[in-house]
Amino acid sequence: MISKIVTADSDALVGLYALISPHIERVERVIQDELFSPHPFVSELCERVGRYRGKMLRPALVLLSGEAVGGVNDDHHTLAAVVEIVHLATLVHDDVLDDADRRRRHPTINATHGNVTAVLMGDFLISHAYHLCGSLGDQYAARTIGATTNTVCEGELIEIHHRHDAAISEEAYFDIIRGKTASLTGTCCALGARYAGADADTVGTMRDFGLAAGTAFQIVDDVLDLTGTEVSTGKSLGLDLAHGSATLPIIHCLLNASPGARADLAAFVRAQPTSDSLDIRSLLDDTGSIDYAFDVARRYVDTATDRLRALPDTPARDSLRSMAEFILSRQF
Amino acid sequence: MISKIVTADSDALVGLYALISPHIERVERVIQDELFSPHPFVSELCERVGRYRGKMLRPALVLLSGEAVGGVNDDHHTLAAVVEIVHLATLVHDDVLDDADRRRRHPTINATHGNVTAVLMGDFLISHAYHLCGSLGDQYAARTIGATTNTVCEGELIEIHHRHDAAISEEAYFDIIRGKTASLTGTCCALGARYAGADADTVGTMRDFGLAAGTAFQIVDDVLDLTGTEVSTGKSLGLDLAHGSATLPIIHCLLNASPGARADLAAFVRAQPTSDSLDIRSLLDDTGSIDYAFDVARRYVDTATDRLRALPDTPARDSLRSMAEFILSRQF
Repeated sequence: MISKIVTADSDALVGLYALISPHIERVERVIQDELFSPHPFVSELCERVGRYRGKMLRPALVLLSGEAVGGVNDDHHTLAAVVEIVHLATLVHDDVLDDADRRRRHPTINATHGNVTAVLMGDFLISHAYHLCGSLGDQYAARTIGATTNTVCEGELIEIHHRHDAAISEEAYFDIIRGKTASLTGTCCALGARYAGADADTVGTMRDFGLAAGTAFQIVDDVLDLTGTEVSTGKSLGLDLAHGSATLPIIHCLLNASPGARADLAAFVRAQPTSDSLDIRSLLDDTGSIDYAFDVARRYVDTATDRLRALPDTPARDSLRSMAEFILSRQF
Repeated sequence: MISKIVTADSDALVGLYALISPHIERVERVIQDELFSPHPFVSELCERVGRYRGKMLRPALVLLSGEAVGGVNDDHHTLAAVVEIVHLATLVHDDVLDDADRRRRHPTINATHGNVTAVLMGDFLISHAYHLCGSLGDQYAARTIGATTNTVCEGELIEIHHRHDAAISEEAYFDIIRGKTASLTGTCCALGARYAGADADTVGTMRDFGLAAGTAFQIVDDVLDLTGTEVSTGKSLGLDLAHGSATLPIIHCLLNASPGARADLAAFVRAQPTSDSLDIRSLLDDTGSIDYAFDVARRYVDTATDRLRALPDTPARDSLRSMAEFILSRQF
């Protein structure tokens, strides 16, 4: 079944997921059971959203974190489904915010059904995530997921606030990506550990691992937005910049380019371009900004793998390390 | 403090709320504490959303239901804040969906900050509602609120699906309003009773009361959308019809108007008007459709008040009955 959910770089992820493959299948079924509606129109939307499911990275983090510290149980299947549905909700709303027409080579909900339906469908998904979370035996996950989605929304709001801000600092950029991406991956690992019975220190260690890995993941995602090919990413290209969001390579370039190039790039970010076209890629090459961003991502991956040293030497720990290292080589 | 939150028909609601007025103030503080952000941009948005708070009907239902069956405790303050924040989230997203520029005489978030920020702000609010719900001692409310918001979203999706549908049935209309409105008011009353220690039968009775009252409320809301004045409703007029949503009076009129008038109105609902202007009010008068809708609403109010007979005779029960009866006389 892994081949169904992974559409590129399959071999790499099949290897990483081998240990948890039967659990991933269980999670898929929990998601399908939760995202059910008796109304044909809503049911069709659920089916469309199902096509967005890609790498199942967040469920894998929950499951591998559980496996690494004590073993996976039914709660992990529920939690893994919850975080994937939260993730799907953010994708559906992000596509509205970015006016994106494709996602994983499929048309987005906003493209096929309009923004109104897409906003409501994102709400439907987030509601089902919390509903499913409410089926667990205690409130710890519900409270933690709630706190995390608070942070995700704040991160996204701060990002919007900094759109077209050519003076955005690296610090603000890291605030944004910690909020919108790393907080959820950190929570995946923390909950995986906690529901396997880990003590508070271990839960904290796993959260740190997930925060660092998620930060690295988002940096690479932002680099791929500037450099990737549409075929491999399955989404429209250069969306961040087109919407005035300056990510790490752009921020670095703005600080290090020649005065003329800097002025051109800043004007572009502000959506007040001084010329008809700007060769962004060549500007980024001149300042080594892609390499710089990858170096920063590599340091976060090192931090993540360093945290894993506190865990017993198990195949699950190896898989978590490989997932963190995979971030730097992924093409999608 | 009641005078602050009620902006019209104040005397009527001050009387209804007298019994729970100190609790309403507590709920206001819980909401303020929950909707906090250290980021000035997010904080400003929270402050703007605070201006939407109007009648606090849903918190009042939680509190009066608790008071009517056993007494209000701290859980009720939390629950009342949760349902009000859920309601605020739906208002913020509804304003995006309806492209509304005013809400309670204040500009909407989408009007001042654009749709992107408004979508995220709605997400931020719903996240905080679930987060706050996660602070309760058990999962019952979290699970119930999750199930309710699932139903709310489905109701809104079905409504969108029926936009521009001039053949929509009364049955579909009631499915929509039970989903988008009555499910939440039913849950308010059920949770109010349950967290006051009521047995399952009483919880069911209170849910039935809230469902019937909420259904009546939405019917009247839909009538006011067609007949109200902007000054008293504080929102743009005739939005439903402008967006192709046929509500109860329109559905009745479509079934009972003369063939020519029916064709004109159907074309209008389908957004393919056959003439430059259509005197909707006069069509509705000809078929008595406003009176018809009020009669249906009155029957739902009767059902609601009938349910209250199962409760002990207390001032809280009287207030709930008055709230239900107030639905038929409200001007906003």
